[in-house]
Amino acid sequence: MKLKTRVTHILKIEHPVVQAPMAGGPTTPELVAAVSNTGGLGSLGAAYLPPEILRQQVREIRHRTGGPFNVNLFVPSPFEADPERIERSGELLEPYRAELGIQDPEMPSSFEESFDDQLQVILEEKVPVFSFTFGVPGGEHLRRLRDADIITVGTATTVREGLRLEESGVDVVVAQGGEAGGHRGTFLGDFRDALIGTMALVPQMVDALSVPVIASGGIMDGRGLAAALVLGAEAAQMGTAFLTCEESGAHPVFKKAVLGAAEDETAVTLAFSGRAARGIKNRFLVEVGEYEEELPPFPVQNALTKDVRATAQRQGHPEFMSLWAGQAAQLASPATAAQIVEGVVDGAESALRRLAGSPT
Amino acid sequence: MKLKTRVTHILKIEHPVVQAPMAGGPTTPELVAAVSNTGGLGSLGAAYLPPEILRQQVREIRHRTGGPFNVNLFVPSPFEADPERIERSGELLEPYRAELGIQDPEMPSSFEESFDDQLQVILEEKVPVFSFTFGVPGGEHLRRLRDADIITVGTATTVREGLRLEESGVDVVVAQGGEAGGHRGTFLGDFRDALIGTMALVPQMVDALSVPVIASGGIMDGRGLAAALVLGAEAAQMGTAFLTCEESGAHPVFKKAVLGAAEDETAVTLAFSGRAARGIKNRFLVEVGEYEEELPPFPVQNALTKDVRATAQRQGHPEFMSLWAGQAAQLASPATAAQIVEGVVDGAESALRRLAGSPT
Repeated sequence: MKLKTRVTHILKIEHPVVQAPMAGGPTTPELVAAVSNTGGLGSLGAAYLPPEILRQQVREIRHRTGGPFNVNLFVPSPFEADPERIERSGELLEPYRAELGIQDPEMPSSFEESFDDQLQVILEEKVPVFSFTFGVPGGEHLRRLRDADIITVGTATTVREGLRLEESGVDVVVAQGGEAGGHRGTFLGDFRDALIGTMALVPQMVDALSVPVIASGGIMDGRGLAAALVLGAEAAQMGTAFLTCEESGAHPVFKKAVLGAAEDETAVTLAFSGRAARGIKNRFLVEVGEYEEELPPFPVQNALTKDVRATAQRQGHPEFMSLWAGQAAQLASPATAAQIVEGVVDGAESALRRLAGSPT
Repeated sequence: MKLKTRVTHILKIEHPVVQAPMAGGPTTPELVAAVSNTGGLGSLGAAYLPPEILRQQVREIRHRTGGPFNVNLFVPSPFEADPERIERSGELLEPYRAELGIQDPEMPSSFEESFDDQLQVILEEKVPVFSFTFGVPGGEHLRRLRDADIITVGTATTVREGLRLEESGVDVVVAQGGEAGGHRGTFLGDFRDALIGTMALVPQMVDALSVPVIASGGIMDGRGLAAALVLGAEAAQMGTAFLTCEESGAHPVFKKAVLGAAEDETAVTLAFSGRAARGIKNRFLVEVGEYEEELPPFPVQNALTKDVRATAQRQGHPEFMSLWAGQAAQLASPATAAQIVEGVVDGAESALRRLAGSPT
């Protein structure tokens, strides 16, 4: 059996398995290349990378694999850096800074990297696949990507968003179910309305769109890939499943938390970044989360909490780190990326064979 | 291909399809019998039925089918009928009563039916399958059900609840994903933590339990049944999929709302019953939902809102009805129950064959 779909054809991959981009460290060039070398699509979560680091990492991936790979960026939106909200955020962060020993926190010189400059690198380096989250790039950007023969993949949390992406001309849409770890891709309407479970979202998205759909959210193994495919998706994107693997750059303390997280121990929060994201509940998520109505929006809050998150990580202090993970985290494993890809494909094939081969 | 599992064996059904119990009207004896006559398991949502009506409906089902069927009850919990909360609820309901022309609302004589009396009917009538929600019946109740050779099915929204049900000796566990319409079965911890998407919940539940698992939440057609089975569930339970069918007792206005509901138009609310349930957003859900912290708990709020819901239904006024529905409501159809069961089974088989039969 070979699980071939329009997505494996478009992305030029052997298996319908996409390792999700995870910005902020987990998706090292080693991980991305290992997934691509095993016939899946590795993805670099590059949203927080300065353009020159992004370029270095793309080159390192190319050095490690001849296969296709994906780079993901966040589409910027206008935001307000309201001084009162920034001050309030500082008050809320003060006790955590004190506990971590952070003195004289500096105001960040900028709140986010330049999307235009990041995209320029992607165009110059002729990255094979470009995926994006939080919206739709402008028409001129999309035209330049098309002209460079770069495959585009958008992220939708509702059918309406999927249709908007299809209208813009993207090649493939990722349907992000409510189970997914990390940032919610929601860009139309309130994220609270757009927490649609993968089982419900995928068939509705598939029915509404002509372009192929990649399922994401709660998919951790071959059972999940098989389920995604029978629902009509043409590949599965998995983040948490790769977060704990050998090549992942996630901090050991983060990996340990993921492997031990029960299905009801995550929550969607604005506390860390000002934008909705699912992570394992810890002190920061719960305590700062109580005041999330008062926080500045993304990317402001994200920049403001950076010292807390980075220092907590250096100290191995999981209570103040953003422990992004999905609702099936405890199904993750510390295997290698290659073992995960192969296990997912074999597992999907045997799950499908087991049922299709039931006695007539 | 025949989709046979431990669940089809235990429940003595032809197809691994359970029509979900939906208390409050939709699950007429006609619907239950039609599903059972087509080889699925029909379920009577009997939680709000006085014992003698429950007995009549069980007898009517038996008159219409020789097949197995299920009756569902709500396991009672201690609750507080706090006079201040009851008064607050009355204040909040006042404008809706005025708009509907309800004069001099009466305080309900009781807040819920007697579970013991309802269960007595189930035992006396030797109902083939008994399912329950909101907890675990007492050991004595479970012993009497076992002695009467009645198959027991519990409802779990987390693995911890599934384990608790298995320890109590139930035969089968329904894993209720966050997509599901109607009341959340959560009985341990906060319902907000227990909105686990079906894609994530089912494999974790299957891995943890020895008894077979039925998947529910967001499953609307053959694609969903196939996905549930490859995830490791041994049947699918579908509510919203049957809500709009010909034999369903749901009000025409309710059916119309379900058929037109986009995936992001439902919400989980305490407003109607005091207990978390997913329904289509309408004025009552949104407006009263803003004060849900102040409402009395289930079953008190449920009894207090009964006149509003019933009058709204008589007047065909969807804004004040509890429009319980899941996150894939728009995949429902107005077919007959038999057509739905057959379409689901055929669809699952062809989804599985399509993939398993891909060229090697």
